[in-house]
Amino acid sequence: MRSVEWLDGSIRIIDQTKLPSKLEYVQLRNAQEVAEALKSMKVRGAPLIGVVAALGLALVASNSKASERDALLREIEEAASVIRKTRPTAVNLSWAINQALDRARASTSMNEMRKNVIGLAIHMLEEDVSTNIKMGKVGAELIEDGDTVLVHCNTGTLATAGYGTAHGVLRAAWGMGKRFKVIATETRPLLQGARLTAFELKHDGIPVTLITDGMVGHVLSRRLARKVFVGADRIAANGDVCNKIGTSTIAFVAKAFGVPFYSVAPTSSIDISTPSGEMVVIEERDAREVLEIEGKRIAPEGIPVLNPAFDVTPAAYVTAIVTERGILYPPLEQSIKRILA
Amino acid sequence: MRSVEWLDGSIRIIDQTKLPSKLEYVQLRNAQEVAEALKSMKVRGAPLIGVVAALGLALVASNSKASERDALLREIEEAASVIRKTRPTAVNLSWAINQALDRARASTSMNEMRKNVIGLAIHMLEEDVSTNIKMGKVGAELIEDGDTVLVHCNTGTLATAGYGTAHGVLRAAWGMGKRFKVIATETRPLLQGARLTAFELKHDGIPVTLITDGMVGHVLSRRLARKVFVGADRIAANGDVCNKIGTSTIAFVAKAFGVPFYSVAPTSSIDISTPSGEMVVIEERDAREVLEIEGKRIAPEGIPVLNPAFDVTPAAYVTAIVTERGILYPPLEQSIKRILA
Repeated sequence: MRSVEWLDGSIRIIDQTKLPSKLEYVQLRNAQEVAEALKSMKVRGAPLIGVVAALGLALVASNSKASERDALLREIEEAASVIRKTRPTAVNLSWAINQALDRARASTSMNEMRKNVIGLAIHMLEEDVSTNIKMGKVGAELIEDGDTVLVHCNTGTLATAGYGTAHGVLRAAWGMGKRFKVIATETRPLLQGARLTAFELKHDGIPVTLITDGMVGHVLSRRLARKVFVGADRIAANGDVCNKIGTSTIAFVAKAFGVPFYSVAPTSSIDISTPSGEMVVIEERDAREVLEIEGKRIAPEGIPVLNPAFDVTPAAYVTAIVTERGILYPPLEQSIKRILA
Repeated sequence: MRSVEWLDGSIRIIDQTKLPSKLEYVQLRNAQEVAEALKSMKVRGAPLIGVVAALGLALVASNSKASERDALLREIEEAASVIRKTRPTAVNLSWAINQALDRARASTSMNEMRKNVIGLAIHMLEEDVSTNIKMGKVGAELIEDGDTVLVHCNTGTLATAGYGTAHGVLRAAWGMGKRFKVIATETRPLLQGARLTAFELKHDGIPVTLITDGMVGHVLSRRLARKVFVGADRIAANGDVCNKIGTSTIAFVAKAFGVPFYSVAPTSSIDISTPSGEMVVIEERDAREVLEIEGKRIAPEGIPVLNPAFDVTPAAYVTAIVTERGILYPPLEQSIKRILA
C-alpha cells in the first residue's frame, strides 16, 4: 500500500475517505485537483499534506505549456497560493510550498525550474519515508514488551509518504520483536482511528482494540493503557503540540494519572516562528462533519456545532517529543532550540 | 412530549432509538416487551429505567390470569428477575424492583397486591417528575446569567419520567429568566447528546451547540464552557459518580482547569450499600454500538472494542451533587450520610 506515488505527470493517491470499505486509487492531474483532494481530506496527515503539496507544484512544472521561465514561475506561484489555502494548521504544507517556491525562483532557466521543482518533490517523498524510519527506531526504545499504548487519529502510512510517525514507532518496536497492545480512539468527527488506524494496525498484525473518544478517561484512570503516542500537525517553539482535535483531552487526562504522553513528529513539523500554540490558526471545518456520519444525519436540524480540526496540547503536558534526530525532553523550548541549532 | 405513560394495562413509551428523525410511540404489553425495550435502549436514562421497571411489574399485576395470591406473586417475581437483568449499572432499576417486590409480598390478598404494585408504579412515575422539579429549583442557583455550561449524554424528559435531572436544572434556570448557553457532547457510541439532548434543548428554546466527545479538552482548557452538569446512574456512599461513559474524561479535564463539575441526581440514585465506585458493575454493551453508527460499519472486520456503558468519576473530581433535598458539598461521604439520615 502506497499512500502517494509520482507517476511522471500525475500523482496517484488513495482516496482515504473511502477506507476501510474500499481501497480506491485516484489520479490528480493538476493543482486544482490537488487542492480539492487536500480540502476534502482524500489525502490527510501533516507529513503527507506537505509531500502532496510539493508534488502538486511538480505537476505544474511537469505539465505546463509555458514557453519561458517567468511564465512558468507565475503558474507555479498561482498554484502555490491555491494549494496553500486548503489546510491552514499543518506547518508542513507551507513549509513544503515555501521550499518549492525558493527552488523555482532560484532557477535561471525554465528547464532548470522544471528539474528543481520536480526533483525537490520526489526528494521530499523519499525523505519523508526515511525520516519516519529513523523516528521509528528512535521512539521504539520507549515501548516495552507487555505494554499497552493509546494512539489517537491516524499517523501511519496513510498520514505520511510511508511508514508513519507515532505509528512508525509502533512498527519499529514490533519489528524489533517487542510485543505490545494498542488501544486506538475512533477519532470523531471523521473517524480516522476507526477507519484508518485500525485498518493499518490490523494489516501489520499488531493487536488493536477500538474505543470511542470519550472512553479515554476510563482507559487511562484504570491504567488500561500505560503510554500515549500521538503525531503532531505543528509544534510551536515552546513545545506546544498542535494535533488532531481530541489530543489535548487525552493529554490532560494522561497528566492527571501519570501516564507518559509522547508526540512523534519530524523536525520539519517544528515551527520555530510560532512562539506558542495559542498563536496557531486552528482550522474550523464544515459543520456537516459533526452533524452527519457517513452521510447519515445524527442531530436535529438547526443545531450549531463547533468543529475545530485541531487542538493545542500545552508543552507542560508533553512528556517528550520524538524526532528523527532524537528524543526531546523538557524543558522543551531549550531542547527544540538545541536540536534545530 | 411524555417519555412514559401508564395506559391501564399497557405502557406507552417513545422509541428513543428513532429520535430525532422520528417521534414514534410504542406500547409495551408484558414483562418481556419491557425487558426488551430496556435492553435495546428504546427507553434509557437511570430514573426512567426505574419507573419503567416498576410499571413492567404493574403490567403483570394488571394483566395476569392468576387466580390466587401466591400464583400472582410468583409471576411478579419471575418478571422482576427478567427485568432486573437488563441493565446492571443503574441503581434505580433494582431499587424500583425491590420496592415493588416488598409491596407485593406484604399484600395479603391478590386484589391488594394488584392495587399495591400498580399504585406504587404510578406513584413512582409522578414522584420522579416532582422530585426533578424540586432538584431543578435547587440546582438553578448554580447557573448565572451569561454562563455557558457543558452537558453530557441526555438527562431530560427522555431520561426521566419527565422534566429531567441535569437538564431539569437548565429548565428551571431558564424558567427563572436566566439566560445562558449550553454545549452538549454528542455522546458516542449511541449519540444521546446529538440525538436527544440537542432535540430537547432546541424544543425548550435554550441555545445549544454540539461538539464531539474529544473536543472537551479544547472547550474546557479555553474556558469555552465554565461549568459542567451531568446526571448519575449510581452514586456510591463515598460520592463516586457512576454515569454515562465519557463523564469521567470530562471530570478529569474540568478539574485540571478549575471548572466546577456538578452531578444532578435524586437521592434514590445514591446507593449507600456500594461503598465506592470501584465496586459498581459496569455494563459492557454490544461491540456493534462502537463498530457501527446508525447501521453503517465504520471499522474493518475483526477489530475488538471496549464498550463500557458507564465510567466512574471519583468523588475527588465532583464539585457538588445536586439532589431534591439540597446540594451536597465535599466531604461528600459525610454530606451523603447526613442527607440520608
